[in-house]
Amino acid sequence: MSDDPLVIFTPSGKRGRVPFGTPVLAAARQLGVDLDSVCGGRGICSKCQISPGYGAFSKHGVTVAEDALSDWNAVEDRYKQLRGLAEGRRLGCQARIMGDVVIDVPPESQVHKQVIRKSVTERVIEMDPATRLLYVEVAEPDMHEPTGDFERLALALRNQWQVADVTADLALLRRLQPVLRKGNWRVTVALHKGNHDAAPRILDLWPGFHDVAIHGLAIDLGSTTIAAHLCDLRDGRVLASGGVMNPQIRFGEDLMSRVSYVMMNPGGDVEMTRVVRAAINDLALSIAAQGGVDPASIYEVVVVCNPVMHHLLLGIDPVELGQAPFALATSGSLSLDARDLDLAAINRAARVYILPCIAGHVGADAAAVALSEQPGKSDEMVLIVDVGTNAEILLGNKTRVLACSSPTGPAFEGAQISSGQRAAPGAIERVEIDPVTKEPRFRVIGSEVWSDDAGFAAATAASGITGICGSGIIEAVAEMRMAGLVDPGGLIGGPDQTGTQRCIPDGRTHSYLLHDASAAGGPRIMVTQGDIRAIQLAKSALYAGARLLMDEMGIDHVDRITLAGAFGAHISPTHAMVLGMIPDAPLDHVTSAGNAAGTGARIALCNVAARDQIEAVVHDIHKVETAIEPRFQEHFVNANAIPHAVDPFPNLFSVLTLPQVSFNTQGSGSDGRRRRRG
Amino acid sequence: MSDDPLVIFTPSGKRGRVPFGTPVLAAARQLGVDLDSVCGGRGICSKCQISPGYGAFSKHGVTVAEDALSDWNAVEDRYKQLRGLAEGRRLGCQARIMGDVVIDVPPESQVHKQVIRKSVTERVIEMDPATRLLYVEVAEPDMHEPTGDFERLALALRNQWQVADVTADLALLRRLQPVLRKGNWRVTVALHKGNHDAAPRILDLWPGFHDVAIHGLAIDLGSTTIAAHLCDLRDGRVLASGGVMNPQIRFGEDLMSRVSYVMMNPGGDVEMTRVVRAAINDLALSIAAQGGVDPASIYEVVVVCNPVMHHLLLGIDPVELGQAPFALATSGSLSLDARDLDLAAINRAARVYILPCIAGHVGADAAAVALSEQPGKSDEMVLIVDVGTNAEILLGNKTRVLACSSPTGPAFEGAQISSGQRAAPGAIERVEIDPVTKEPRFRVIGSEVWSDDAGFAAATAASGITGICGSGIIEAVAEMRMAGLVDPGGLIGGPDQTGTQRCIPDGRTHSYLLHDASAAGGPRIMVTQGDIRAIQLAKSALYAGARLLMDEMGIDHVDRITLAGAFGAHISPTHAMVLGMIPDAPLDHVTSAGNAAGTGARIALCNVAARDQIEAVVHDIHKVETAIEPRFQEHFVNANAIPHAVDPFPNLFSVLTLPQVSFNTQGSGSDGRRRRRG
Repeated sequence: MSDDPLVIFTPSGKRGRVPFGTPVLAAARQLGVDLDSVCGGRGICSKCQISPGYGAFSKHGVTVAEDALSDWNAVEDRYKQLRGLAEGRRLGCQARIMGDVVIDVPPESQVHKQVIRKSVTERVIEMDPATRLLYVEVAEPDMHEPTGDFERLALALRNQWQVADVTADLALLRRLQPVLRKGNWRVTVALHKGNHDAAPRILDLWPGFHDVAIHGLAIDLGSTTIAAHLCDLRDGRVLASGGVMNPQIRFGEDLMSRVSYVMMNPGGDVEMTRVVRAAINDLALSIAAQGGVDPASIYEVVVVCNPVMHHLLLGIDPVELGQAPFALATSGSLSLDARDLDLAAINRAARVYILPCIAGHVGADAAAVALSEQPGKSDEMVLIVDVGTNAEILLGNKTRVLACSSPTGPAFEGAQISSGQRAAPGAIERVEIDPVTKEPRFRVIGSEVWSDDAGFAAATAASGITGICGSGIIEAVAEMRMAGLVDPGGLIGGPDQTGTQRCIPDGRTHSYLLHDASAAGGPRIMVTQGDIRAIQLAKSALYAGARLLMDEMGIDHVDRITLAGAFGAHISPTHAMVLGMIPDAPLDHVTSAGNAAGTGARIALCNVAARDQIEAVVHDIHKVETAIEPRFQEHFVNANAIPHAVDPFPNLFSVLTLPQVSFNTQGSGSDGRRRRRG
Repeated sequence: MSDDPLVIFTPSGKRGRVPFGTPVLAAARQLGVDLDSVCGGRGICSKCQISPGYGAFSKHGVTVAEDALSDWNAVEDRYKQLRGLAEGRRLGCQARIMGDVVIDVPPESQVHKQVIRKSVTERVIEMDPATRLLYVEVAEPDMHEPTGDFERLALALRNQWQVADVTADLALLRRLQPVLRKGNWRVTVALHKGNHDAAPRILDLWPGFHDVAIHGLAIDLGSTTIAAHLCDLRDGRVLASGGVMNPQIRFGEDLMSRVSYVMMNPGGDVEMTRVVRAAINDLALSIAAQGGVDPASIYEVVVVCNPVMHHLLLGIDPVELGQAPFALATSGSLSLDARDLDLAAINRAARVYILPCIAGHVGADAAAVALSEQPGKSDEMVLIVDVGTNAEILLGNKTRVLACSSPTGPAFEGAQISSGQRAAPGAIERVEIDPVTKEPRFRVIGSEVWSDDAGFAAATAASGITGICGSGIIEAVAEMRMAGLVDPGGLIGGPDQTGTQRCIPDGRTHSYLLHDASAAGGPRIMVTQGDIRAIQLAKSALYAGARLLMDEMGIDHVDRITLAGAFGAHISPTHAMVLGMIPDAPLDHVTSAGNAAGTGARIALCNVAARDQIEAVVHDIHKVETAIEPRFQEHFVNANAIPHAVDPFPNLFSVLTLPQVSFNTQGSGSDGRRRRRG
């Protein structure tokens, strides 16, 4: 009908004619405009606020009269008095379209809000979580047309929210009748939509309109550390982040030693499953406390992890992952009840989504990195290394993506290091060594002050100086190499060779004294020869994995390198290159992506469509198996040395440049200037 | 291709041309012929046996040459040697079609076997259980094309059995890898297909080809008794049947007293839920032992019950069912895990299906009766009464079906009766009283011998004579009325009036001594005045419910009456009419259907399509609420008398015939002759 009023929504630009008197919310739905509503148009929730524009809109070719919307009504009046309504705003469910109009949907009224991720590489996550709140009005029971209360609730959800075939578990059915009556047949439900064809499920319900915050946990379950983000499922905000050590460490520091433990102790996986689930419960409780939310408000968990952790979390014996052909019990994504995993700390109806594994050695964490970093959408050839006890490595561009994992061991996470510790307040995270005086300076987590700055003692009084974390040990070893304290083979020189008494004899080798608080009863923090060896093994494995993928891709350089990992954001690209962790690339093309696996988990938490997407992506990733590839061993052995080709200062040892490693000196030079307090 | 051989299957008559060399099993699948196979055509299971016909078939217009099927092969040879193969039989998966042929599929090779139900009204149940065994060959893992073992199993089920998107719980995933390897990548799975759109689920698996029996339990959960049938899910055979008292009786003998118990003792439902689940576990164990099967071989349970038992089984507080509008928490069918109901006695992966409820007072048991007796397919107007503590009553024909329930109380099940007991060996189930001598004779369950026959003592030595069951008390009261021991109002006469010393003063009233074993230290089994009153209340309620439906239907007589109930098979129609339990109908149109609710449960157990069917039927049944209907009270009061219009013998009291009750004397006369040892 051309007589019907024309309505144009901004910023989407969607437009159409609707019958005279149509509420703005109904018009938005009809035209496919993203306008939020929790109460379903009853003037309760205020999520559907809009701003009408009046006057001439030449861009849209319309002129909007002052009476294009119906008059301000009693519902809006009441809402404004009770909770306030910004000038010019209307409730979309109340205001009706009486003439041609241009209507702006402000960002906070969009369901699919876009959240900017706080990280080096900014990222937009479109909010479309699996669980959301819906307000419904349920028909009262009629003994002459008897149906169950649940069936009437399901019908209301179908009619009022177009959600068909909802389900509920017995625990919810038990609570249903009193809540419906208490709410006088009006309730708010937390509705979970599964991915694929899973039936939507009611996870919780409250009497009346209940605008409660509901939360989700994105968990990166690593071999050494378990990291988690607590997110508000309405807007994607990260309310708290935290981590704990994986208590399975006592059964073996790396994955293969845990698999061996099970091989030697049949049934040993049961205890490992128990402790990791307990740790996740503890982490959930502490992170909820930190974020100031009730743990029972957590309705969603997304887990990413490597295959061995995946099986141990699920309670599946991981022995098949310890031997060729490294068969996973299951590789697909999993949607589970939290109680299947004994996650009793959070809401008892909570759902868990575990990303798919790529292969027996390339897990859901690598899938999460792929979801976060999207190598398959890149024009450039990008190498992504997710550094952890097992490194996940992805290489590719639009045409092809390869993946492998490499057993780096826990050294990069501060384990197997003499003074090593998890990244936590008090841990040394940045190190510089003066190439002339050989004296160190450092920073600890929780303080921005360097150790040779005034105020350092005061700034670190609370945390103390307790050890050295993964990024700290990487910087320390690289700086030692650049300061000429370590030779290309990784040997620490004695005081005679290095000219510093900080190189202390330690058995048959030497250790470098980074910090000595023993006079005050504190620790002596050293870098030992064993620490250097552990870092050499770790970086060689990482490097060899990356090279293997490059061989498979038939290339000898990459356009871009992304460093990721639980502490990826803290790794200095320069130091990584000095160590030879990563192949050659212009330094300004090396970026840190932070905890990309954790980000991938957050994306899957906040956007249910991303779950389907990653399942498709995983299918297209080509997996390369490092464990049986002779060239991996070859690359590994060749990568053992610490090349150190970028030191602008003279040193005692000769410079060794491995053929496959050379550096862009301009980049490193500029980084060198920054390091030197530039 | 008209050159392709023509194949005709009997008895279905399905025919078509298939490529030369097509195996008979493949041809059957292609033409939609019901030919069984568990091993998927690998010559292992022998389920696909067929009988080729040779020679001229004028009916089908073909002549079958001797070489119409491929030669007998080595697989068939080996099978015949190992397990035997009847003359003329071939394995459908081995024999290939080489020319025009007529092939007979014997009944035992049909998947949808038809089982004749052993009962008064014979019934055909087409076997199509939700859970069946499938043999699959799974691709081995390939580290260059890595997928999980489960994903390869799912692919095999899709390719070999056309079952898509199978699921499995964590417990199965835990067992998957060792079983696949033990079976050398060949396994047999127990696959459950849900009704509606539920994804198929693997409940169990075994290495290799495993032709194990799998079982199901059909449970009729009554207020007073819990009855169960143990069925073989392959062929529907009933391997054992049994029952126990519902232990909730201690919280209240009838439904409303249990609801009152919860009202008075908030949380009291929790204990009732616990005891009924424990009783079902015990029953499952005992019935499995009786049938000689492992309880872990039970993968399916179907439960029918009234709404209060339904809620108490599910753990839902039933208080809403105790007051108008009698709202059910949920009325739809439920598919649950057995562990959701704490049914730990059976297989831990077992599934439970609970039939839908019709209304707040008309439960899944009534739905099961409708499924068993199919009133909606009847040309005649049929009244079905399912007698229990609560009677379910259905009335209707092809055009319309009505349902109600009536609170008869537990008297018909032997409870609230002074010498009452559950129907079990030792219980008096048949009673006759000589109208002249007033002497009784009786039979007890477990023996075919009457008490005045020689050999009675020997026949009942094992069980003893322990009490009187529901059918026994109905016969006793009716016989007492016919023998002139009881007046139309229900009063037992004294010895002076009745002329027998068996009428013993008992307080202010009299009791009739049915059996006295006190000399031998045994019980004195009496029918007291209280017993008569309990039966009068019960039968009045039953009668009033039936009349209410007749009023609603606008009829004053029915064409046929079906008596059903846990002990329905044992009620004598004559005695039921003497008592006035049921409205007027020709005696030869009154039949017993046995435990129709239990039969309905068995049908839903053996045929998954019946589950969808009953859900549709329930939707079309019109429910009549007795509790708020003034005419129900009116009918109830009017039905209190015991009419006794059929006694062929003179007696002390006058005959009272209620207007709505009159009897076909020819029918009752013939029954009377039978009763008198005719």
